[in-house]
Parts: sequence; C-alpha cells; structure tokens
Amino acid sequence: MLDRKFNACLMRPEDVSPSDDALEVVGTFNPGALAVDGEVVLLVRVAERPRERRDAFTALPRREPGAGLAIDWVANEELTFIDPRVVEIKATGDIRLTFISHILVARSKNGRSIDSVSATRFFPQEDCETYGVEDPRITRIQGPGLGDEYHFTYVAVSKHGAGTALASTADFDRFERHGIVFPPENKDVLLFPERIGGEYAAFHRPNPATHFTPPEMWLAYSSDLIHWGRHEPFHGGAGAWESGRIGGGCPPMRTERGWLEIYHGNERSATGVGVYSAGAVLLDIENPQRVLGRTDGPIMVPEADFEREGFVADVVFPTGLVDRGDVLQVYYGAADANVGVVEWAKADLLAALH
Amino acid sequence: MLDRKFNACLMRPEDVSPSDDALEVVGTFNPGALAVDGEVVLLVRVAERPRERRDAFTALPRREPGAGLAIDWVANEELTFIDPRVVEIKATGDIRLTFISHILVARSKNGRSIDSVSATRFFPQEDCETYGVEDPRITRIQGPGLGDEYHFTYVAVSKHGAGTALASTADFDRFERHGIVFPPENKDVLLFPERIGGEYAAFHRPNPATHFTPPEMWLAYSSDLIHWGRHEPFHGGAGAWESGRIGGGCPPMRTERGWLEIYHGNERSATGVGVYSAGAVLLDIENPQRVLGRTDGPIMVPEADFEREGFVADVVFPTGLVDRGDVLQVYYGAADANVGVVEWAKADLLAALH
Repeated sequence: MLDRKFNACLMRPEDVSPSDDALEVVGTFNPGALAVDGEVVLLVRVAERPRERRDAFTALPRREPGAGLAIDWVANEELTFIDPRVVEIKATGDIRLTFISHILVARSKNGRSIDSVSATRFFPQEDCETYGVEDPRITRIQGPGLGDEYHFTYVAVSKHGAGTALASTADFDRFERHGIVFPPENKDVLLFPERIGGEYAAFHRPNPATHFTPPEMWLAYSSDLIHWGRHEPFHGGAGAWESGRIGGGCPPMRTERGWLEIYHGNERSATGVGVYSAGAVLLDIENPQRVLGRTDGPIMVPEADFEREGFVADVVFPTGLVDRGDVLQVYYGAADANVGVVEWAKADLLAALH
Repeated sequence: MLDRKFNACLMRPEDVSPSDDALEVVGTFNPGALAVDGEVVLLVRVAERPRERRDAFTALPRREPGAGLAIDWVANEELTFIDPRVVEIKATGDIRLTFISHILVARSKNGRSIDSVSATRFFPQEDCETYGVEDPRITRIQGPGLGDEYHFTYVAVSKHGAGTALASTADFDRFERHGIVFPPENKDVLLFPERIGGEYAAFHRPNPATHFTPPEMWLAYSSDLIHWGRHEPFHGGAGAWESGRIGGGCPPMRTERGWLEIYHGNERSATGVGVYSAGAVLLDIENPQRVLGRTDGPIMVPEADFEREGFVADVVFPTGLVDRGDVLQVYYGAADANVGVVEWAKADLLAALH
C-alpha cells in the first residue's frame, strides 16, 4: 500500500444541486481530472434519482434526444432487481437503471479542495445516451497542431448497451460530441497524452462484466481519434484483488521508466460486487503492449469512511492524475458516491513497480 | 416465406476429412461465398472435436500460436456445462469450447454442388484465435485500386472472448491476417462491396448474446478496413422470430432499390437456443443507416431435415450471397452442421421488402 501523503474527500452528493426539481443527487464520483492553466479541472459524474417515492413502484429515469427528463414508473412485480442500481423489465428483458448520470465541471486551485462549480453541465442528448453519460476521462494530447482542445471519453448508456463516446472542449463550457468510438460493451477508455508511432493510442476494456471473459485491458490505435483499430489485450491482472473486473483508471502519464498507468481492479465475488482497489503498471514508451513493471497487489484499498460507505460500499476507482513534480495527485471515485483525492510521492509509486 | 426455387445440402461433416488424426469433424457450416472467375468459392467453417472419449472427463481442444493442436482433459466435476458446446471451468471461471473450428476452401462451378475442396486450410494461429476461427464472411470490394484481393472477416475465439478479425487473400491459398478489427464481444461483421461516402462500411453486432442488451445490428465506417469508427445501431428487429439474437448474414448487395441485407434472427427462448431464421432489410444506398424496407417476418425458416437436425437443431444462418441475375443463390449454415444453398427469385425477395 502506498503512503497517503494527503487524502481528502473533495465532493459529496450534498455538495451539488440537482439538475431537475424531480431529482436528487445520489453520487458525485469518478472524476476526470486535468491541470489547465495552473488549476485542476474536474469532470465529475453526477448520478441522480427521482425524488418521489411510490409504494410498489420503481422510478426509471431517462433523457431522450430533444426532450427533457422523463420518468417511467414501473410496478415492482414487473421488475427483476439485479442490483441496487439495475433492474430488468421482465416482459421485454430490457435493462434499466434506477438513476441517471450527467457530467459537472468543477475547479480547484491547489487540487485539494473545490473552489468553484460551473453552471454548465454535460447532459445525455443522444440516442445512445438516454440512460446517462458516465465516468469521463480527460486528456490533453500533446504534439504538433494539438493541445488547443481537451478530449474526454465517457460511457454512453442506453438500451443499446454501455459503449464509450468521445467529446472535446476548449473551454469546458461548449462541448463537441464525436459519437461512439468503442461500441458496447466497452468502458474505461483512456487516451494517451501523446501519439505513439504516429498514431493516437487508447486503453479500452471490451466485454461486459460477466464471467464469459476474463478481466483485461486492451490497447487500440487511431489516426483521428474517431476510427480505432489494432486491438490487442495487454494486461489481465494477476492477483485476487483484480480477479473480478479490471480497467484503465487514470490516463497514462509518461515517466522516465515508461508509461505509468494507475488502474482499478475488483475482487471476484459470488455477489458480483467485490472490493474495488487501485494498482499500477509500467508500460514501454514505444510499445505499450509491453508491460515493464507492475505493483505487487493493490497500492490503495478502501480505508476511509467516504471510500467504504456510499452508493456502493468499498470502492476506490482512480480516474484522474495530476503531476505535481515529486507528488502525484490522484482523483478517484469513492464508494460510487464521493470524489476523493490522494497524494503519493512519485518516488514511492515508481519504487513499487517492478 | 420465399419460394425455394432450388435447395440442396452442399456439404456435411462426413464429406470433409479431419485436420488431425485426434479429431473428428462435427460441423461444416456458415460458409462465406463469393463468385470468382465464373465459379463460387466457399469458405466453410469446419468444427472438430477430439475423437477420444474418456469416462468422466471432457476434452477441450486448443491451438496455441506456434504450436500444434493441444487437448486439455478436464474432469467433468470441475466443469459447469453451459450448453452442448460451451463449458465453464469452475475454479477459474474460464469459458472453453468442446470443439475447435478452422476454415476450408471449397469450389463449385454451378453453385449447386461442390466440385473441389482445397488442400489449404486456414487454422487458428494467433493469441486471440486459440479456441477457433469461425464464420467467415467474404467480400470483393469494388472501386479504384481495389478488387485484386478478397477480404474476409472471421470470429476469433480465445480466452479473450469472441471478437472479429480481418484477413485477405488473392488466391485462396495464401492468406494475410490484419488482426482484430472489432474487439470482443462482436460477431457478424460484414463488409460492404463498395465505399460509401468515401469510406469502407461494415455491419457489426456488438455485445454478447446476453439479455443485457437487445438484439441489434450496427454500422461502422473505416478509411483503411483496419480502424473503425462512427458506430451506430440501425436495426433491432421487430418480430418474435428475431427477439433473441440478430446479426448480419450475407454481405450486402446493391440493388436498384437499395442495399439488400439478408440477416439472421433467433427466437427468444427460455433455454437460450431458439429457432434461427432468415429475414431481409433494404437500406438507403448513400446512407445505409436509413432502413427503407423490411420483410414481414422471416423469409426462410428451418424446414429441411438437414436444417432441423444437426449440432444445433433448427438453424438456418445465411452467410453468403451470389447474384445470378434473376436468381439469388444464398449459402447458409444449417443446424450448425451442414452447408445449404437456396435459390430465390430476386423479384420475389424485392417484392417482400416494403
């Protein structure tokens, strides 16, 4: 376990106003993070659920293209409850969420507390986003002709499944959508901050979280960030702590020893929801398919109250990384409810990779 | 139902010699088909299983890169039998197949009977192919600078899941692999025979066959056949016959009224294996996202003995289409065991699309 030099809960659901009078905020978590002009910009996933309760009915929110929020009330007897967040409509087999997510922009000068929250929010608005936009990961891609815009991936959830879409912004106020870049089921898509061998690169995690395939991360490449190919698996995890699910966490960071990738692993569990922890791998700069080092087990497990209790218990889920020289600031979702930040000594983390 | 002007079983497992003394052929099916120099070339999936039986053990074949055939004998008590073809190793959760597939090249002058079978076979040889290469779909792409090579997609099955890879050939004797183009889970990838708006186009079917997402086909585009983007769902089926699974069948054919796509649908079933039938849609030539017509229900259901009895009962699975002017020759897998061909009057099929 890495020594936490600093650790704080940056945001909780009660810190954010709901986007609609009919909704209440149940989660502010899984924040993309980027250093921009001397401050840290966070793209925070906000999960909301209908405020109203009706006996024997469940409220299923959605946002259709060109329309506002809609709430479907379905009798509980018509539903199978898969987990606290997911239901199946028995008659049709349709999967629905009991909440809906959008993305909020927050700013922090020192990265240790929130200074402001933008009035602009990024809402579902496409056919593939009706059940929510989730888990943004943001990258500033360096290189000739690049750098004026920030690109972020996000999970687009709808009746079509959960795929990953791409958007860009120059000012965090206006956003341009680029559509689905990794079709369902695919999550945890992270863009590299530089081209590799002339191409953009990304981690992705195909497959839904079923037992039909093992947990593993893949690499892919693109000439335009829209069309992706050369798909290859590269890391399947090794320990029990990452035996259930695995996926890219923070966009990778260049170090002298290779690409540093901080990722999440989930312990395989009979109930399907084991502890989520963080680990790290070191990848060859020229050929990230080549794993040069890994940590012996997790570098961070849920310990603080705000990581252990929330919408889903016992989750740390790293999603953003800011390089402060000798210190790394890692932003993460905690218990699917809160935003956390932890600071590690960069030397400690690099020493743990072998 | 379309009138079958001609119908025959072209190939059965007993017609093909096993690729290894340790194996027996259990299926010859799901043939890619293409008219080449006045004859029909078929790429036939050959499924084989270990010949030997051992009491209380199950044989699980695989072909590792750079190695020959290997057979893992696993005690039945260590396995969960998911269906006749798929087992789960209890201790690890790994999914394995009880058979392994490769691809065989056959030729027919009139398209109604097999004249010859090539000595060359296309075997699994990559890390993502260890459990088999399946369901080839072949296209000759027309256009400036194109046409000297034939491209085929195939399902690559391994511990990484079932994704779709691309290969090409000029002579059906030497093959060039282009890697995974649609990562797991993705099957039923068909290339269009022309560029559309300057880009190559393909159907694909993301998602495994679970109830987490509805049956549907997607479109994607590419500038080089390797990197794919602009993913959008376009057809989710409408009838009970296609309520379980759905997927592209034959590579689409240009007609005066639009792209003709003959696809498969599977009836939703409590056991997960309902009847597989064939249907058709008509898509806008310039924007195939736009569905111009569809058939009222299936155009072909399993009727003949060789379609009703085999490795999986009651399956017709169209995979190749040859245009003979007024007549369409459709090649299909029957009961996951046999190759069938059916001839329809083109006018009959077009009349059924509205």
